[in-house]
This record gives sequence, C-alpha cells and structure tokens, in this order.
Amino acid sequence: MIRSLCESSETERSRLIPGPIEVTDEVLFANAHPSMSHMSPDFALVFGDCIRMTRQLLYSKDAQPFLIAGSGTLGWDQVSANLVEPGENALVLHSGYFADSFADCLQTYGANVDQIKAEIGGAVKEADIERALQAKRYKIVTVTHVDTSTAVLSDIKAIANVVKRVSPDTLVVVDAVCSVASEEIQMDAWGIDVVLTASQKGLGTPPGLSIVVASQKAIQVFENRSTPVTTYYGSWKKWLPIMKAYGNNSAAYFATPPVNLIYAFHASLTQIMKGSVSLEQRFKFHQDVSRRIKKAAEEVGFKGVPLSEDVQANGMSALYFPDGFTASDIVPRLLKKDVVVAGGLHASIKDKYFRIGHMGVSVVDPSRGDVDKIISAVKESLAEAKASKQ
Amino acid sequence: MIRSLCESSETERSRLIPGPIEVTDEVLFANAHPSMSHMSPDFALVFGDCIRMTRQLLYSKDAQPFLIAGSGTLGWDQVSANLVEPGENALVLHSGYFADSFADCLQTYGANVDQIKAEIGGAVKEADIERALQAKRYKIVTVTHVDTSTAVLSDIKAIANVVKRVSPDTLVVVDAVCSVASEEIQMDAWGIDVVLTASQKGLGTPPGLSIVVASQKAIQVFENRSTPVTTYYGSWKKWLPIMKAYGNNSAAYFATPPVNLIYAFHASLTQIMKGSVSLEQRFKFHQDVSRRIKKAAEEVGFKGVPLSEDVQANGMSALYFPDGFTASDIVPRLLKKDVVVAGGLHASIKDKYFRIGHMGVSVVDPSRGDVDKIISAVKESLAEAKASKQ
Repeated sequence: MIRSLCESSETERSRLIPGPIEVTDEVLFANAHPSMSHMSPDFALVFGDCIRMTRQLLYSKDAQPFLIAGSGTLGWDQVSANLVEPGENALVLHSGYFADSFADCLQTYGANVDQIKAEIGGAVKEADIERALQAKRYKIVTVTHVDTSTAVLSDIKAIANVVKRVSPDTLVVVDAVCSVASEEIQMDAWGIDVVLTASQKGLGTPPGLSIVVASQKAIQVFENRSTPVTTYYGSWKKWLPIMKAYGNNSAAYFATPPVNLIYAFHASLTQIMKGSVSLEQRFKFHQDVSRRIKKAAEEVGFKGVPLSEDVQANGMSALYFPDGFTASDIVPRLLKKDVVVAGGLHASIKDKYFRIGHMGVSVVDPSRGDVDKIISAVKESLAEAKASKQ
Repeated sequence: MIRSLCESSETERSRLIPGPIEVTDEVLFANAHPSMSHMSPDFALVFGDCIRMTRQLLYSKDAQPFLIAGSGTLGWDQVSANLVEPGENALVLHSGYFADSFADCLQTYGANVDQIKAEIGGAVKEADIERALQAKRYKIVTVTHVDTSTAVLSDIKAIANVVKRVSPDTLVVVDAVCSVASEEIQMDAWGIDVVLTASQKGLGTPPGLSIVVASQKAIQVFENRSTPVTTYYGSWKKWLPIMKAYGNNSAAYFATPPVNLIYAFHASLTQIMKGSVSLEQRFKFHQDVSRRIKKAAEEVGFKGVPLSEDVQANGMSALYFPDGFTASDIVPRLLKKDVVVAGGLHASIKDKYFRIGHMGVSVVDPSRGDVDKIISAVKESLAEAKASKQ
C-alpha cells in the first residue's frame, strides 16, 4: 500500500540485506505519525509500552532498557563509557568484523582490550574463554551474538555459563544487533548483563534507534563507578532517570527522543509480542527459512562462511561464491531480478562471498514471497552466470 | 491527509511547541518510505543532496555537514570530543539552560570551561566577550543562537566579529538547534566555524537526526589534534570519510544511517530551499509571525522573557504569565482548544512562564491557521482564567 505512494525505482525490490530489513506497512504508517510532543502523556504511554515490551522480548523481569536516537554503534559507546572505567580490562570474543570495531570503541574510552580471535567462520571456543578468564581479571566479556560480516552465531548461553562459573563478577555483554527477535535471548535465565541492538534488523523498524538493555547487576556496577562517565550523549547518569520515568508512563527530558521512530518501534514490537505468530514460533520460522535458503544455495554450489551448522545464524546467510565466480557475476543479476543483497564485509574474504538477510516480516509472512524469490533468484543467477561463461 | 490515517486523539491538535514542530505531509510520506539499503546508489544520491542543501541553507561554499542518527545533544559531544583536546579552554556564552548543558558536556570530555552569564532574558554583551578573550586563550567560544529555555536570540554575527578581531584562532561554535531555518545564519560571510542543530525544529523533520556543519578551518583544527578523539560514535575520524563519500553521491559505511529520516530531511530541505517561499522570505515570515504573536500576548498582559526587542527570537516566544496567573490557569485551557504549548524550562523562572514554538510550516503556510489559532487561544484562555477567578 505504502509502496504506491513512493516514486523510487527501488521500492518494488525485495531488500534481503542484513538490515535495514523490509518492514510492515503498519510500521511505516506509524513512522508517518504526525509530530508529537515528547512530553505529552500520550507519547509517554507509548514509550512506556516500548520499554516493557523490549524487556519481555528478552525474557527479563527487571532489566533496564535504554532507547536512544542513534545507530547500533551507540550501544558500544554506552557499554564502553558507562560500564568500563579507564584502565580496566575487557575481553572481546572475535567472530568477525564487528568485534574489531567494538574493541576499537572500548579502547577509545580507555579500556585495556584483549581479543580471542576465532578462525574465519568459527566462534570462540569455551575452553579458550575459560583460560583467558583464569589468567586475568576482566570487567566485561563481549560477544557478538551474530556477526553480520560472517553470519556466525555464538552460543551466548554457554558463554555466559562459563563466565558465571569462572569469573562471576565479570559482566557478560552481548552485541545482539543482528540477533534480537531472530535468535532467542533469555537475559535472566542465561545470566546476560547487557544486550545491545538496533531497530533496523530483526526488530523490523527503520534505522535510527539504539536499544541497550542492562541487567540490574550491570546498573549496580554502573552506579558503583569510582570515576566519572566518559560520554555525555550516551551517559546513563543522564538517561537512567529518563528511562525510569518513561517506564512509569511519565515524560522526562534529557535530549529529544526520536518520537516517530518510537511509534514505529511500538508498532513493530506489538506485532512481534502480540501478533498472530508467537515469539517462539517466530524463532522457529527463522530457523526453518534459514535452513531452506542455505540448503538451496549449497545445492547449487555456494558454501556457507560459518564452518559448521551449530554456528550458523538463523537471520542471515553468508555464502562463498562457487569456484570461478565472483560478486560481479551474481549480485547484478540478483538486482535485475529485484532482489537486493549485501556484498562481503569481512576484509580477508571480502570479494569471495555475499550476504543475504532473512529476518522479520520477510520470514514470518510467507505471502510476501520474499524467501521463494531469493531462492529462485540465486539459482537462476548462477545458472545465467554459468551460461555466459561457456 | 496523513492525519486521517492515525488514531491518536492528539493528531487534531496544533503542536506549537519549540520542537518537535508540525511537519508537512510530504515529509511524513517520505518518512514512510519503504526500507532502503544505506549502500544503494539511489540512497547515496538523496544523502548527497541533503549534504549539499544543508551547506546552501547556511550560505556556505565548502563547510562540511555531518548528518548522524542522534538528537541535537550529540552535536555537543561532537564539538567537545573532536575540536577541544583535554585541558584546553572553552568559553561558553550563557543565555539560558542550554549553555549549562553544553558546558557540562565540554567538561565531560576534559575541557576547562569558563562561562559568561547574561541576566535572565538577556544575551551576553560583546564587551564582556572581548574582555574574556583578552584575558585567556580559548580554543572555542560557544554561543546558543536561540536558547529554547528563554527565547533569547544572540547576535552571532557580531559575536563572531569580536572573536575574529580579538582572538582569530578561536573557533566560533553556534548551538543553532532552535534557530536553523527560522533565523538567518551566514557561515562563510560571518566567520562561523561550527553550526550544530537537529531535525525537529526549523528544519521541519521528525526528531532523530543530529546535524553538525563544520567550516574547513574547524576541520583543519580537528585534523591537527595532537591527542586521540575521545568519542567513538561521534568521532569525525570515523565520519569524515563517510560524509565526504556521500557528498560525492557514493555510499560508505561506518554506522547505519537513519535512512527514512534522511528521506524525510530531503523532502523538507527541498521545500525550504526550492519551494515557493524563498529562504529570505522564510526568515521574513518568521519575523512577522513572531511579532504578531508577541504583540497579541503582550496586549492582554503577558510579558516576554527576553529583556528587549533586539534579543527576541523569531521562531519561538517565552512569555511570563500575567500577575496572579500560573501555568495551571492557562496551559490546560490552551490544550482544550487543541493547542499544545511547552511549559517553562529555565530553573529559576520555571513556573512563571510558558513557551510557544512558531517555526516551519505553521509559519510559512498561513492556510493551516496555526498562528491565528494560538493567538485567539491565548487570549480566550486568559479571559476564561480571569472570569473563573472572579
């Protein structure tokens, strides 16, 4: 419906990139809600609902969400500047591009960072984490739940378990930008202290909202800091009272929230938490679709970047081109078939693979046909590329 | 048109607060543009247009815009963390609440801050600025063009002139959150080094976009830093190559931009820069409407917070209630007449005044009737309040 209002030639395409994903018309309508006062009671209630639904989505009773205008990256700043004091140690588990960036961010705010790097396509092994935690005292351990550069899924439940056992004071921080609402995350039961994410992936909302959720243990660590917080815009000292107020359906001011985007996020969360597909079913849908796409691609000669099935993300695929083919053989052909995918991102293998996002409405609403479309487009594009080389 | 799609009871009201302001249907439609890839050529062109139009809006040939997901506050972080090195001096000119916050932000990143405070309703005097600049070497001087807490307008042209004359190396930083597109700003001709603003005020776009524009001189100062930048998300080291790429209509990635909001900003900038009302006429409209509203309110006993006409903002009014009346006498009555205004914000006079925003489409499109509506609503509300006390 909204598509017909827009003029861009791109609007008929299926965007199957790992974010920004396709979003529902209800979410787009909500994003077109007329300008509202961020101090109005109507808006405070909507914001309050978002806080409560975000908490429920992560199976938490009392974790504290922070919803702030920004991209997912702002979540790294929040963790680095609020939870780690200059000179403290952070352990970064590396399963792709985004760990390097998170490490860079932590260092910017004065942390001493150690990284454990998995081989490309692998996740960091629990034994290596255990050894590192025994050797040094770490304030936080960070793990990328799904690294968008490799489509590698890390087992955050098992990792949190190791941390609790070996170094119970260490906070477990999950970069879940590419996993929230497409992979299960049980904050309380698994002992996760921070989940940081953004609006434009599994959460099915336009980009521009940074979403960070902190356990009460993390909030306690923040409150017991001995040095001042080293950011202003991302300071929990500023935001905590604001988020607590909105959590009680009451408006408060530090910086103007992205009002329209909060309405859009509310529309999407409502569909996710109260729609006809339950949250559990949603995760199952993502698993099934992911297997279908990966299997279909592998049947014709593509090969998944993740080294084994247990580290395969469910919301996206990273696929090596068959031998003898490159991005320029395949990606432009996909585009001609109105399918937008993403190129490679991990520097060491950049030209050898491409990425498909399969999250949100493209997955849970089969009537859109996005999944069938990408599967046949991938097969046909490769066949055409083969034919053109003969 | 879009109003009819939405269900909230608030959608029939005129929001005449100093941001988020009313926005046009074209802008709301653009905000409902289907999800797009931030790496697509179509989007890069739209982003490039936004960069060029932002520069033109500020009458600059070569200043560098930074368009980043965030609120106006993020602009303070960008200035504090990119342009001032820890231990350097900053002079903050105080004409209301927002100077205290900017000073707080600068101190968070390690600046030594001095403030010159005007009396409430006044702007800082040029002689005082000159004296301060002669006494100490400052890396930057910051001035709030229009302080949203007092509706005081500072003469940034005259201030920049004093700085050039007395301390030519000092950068002139203008917090123009509440002035861009409702007050004239000539970056190049007046010698302004940074203009920082946000989308939701005179720029007529939903909130969520931080807009900072830096002169080439400021970029040079940034590039000659001797210490590392102290923010990650707001780091120009990260963003400068990205903004240069988009400025050349080519996509680049550091953090996902707020794609929909960039479309909305593009729609609004197009109306501002290429619409039937020229930019010069737009400023004139704001002056005329501002005078009309202030005059009408003063005639019935309200009194402007700004101490004299030459420090009155054109995009908003801050009005003391007549003696014997408080916010609870007036504001709920305005709301009943479907007019949303803002309460007091400056701590020392918080309960004694209220604020009206008159920016953007409410001003340049008289057919909406927003201005007539607020004028009669203010008069009627006071008359009713008087009657109820008799």
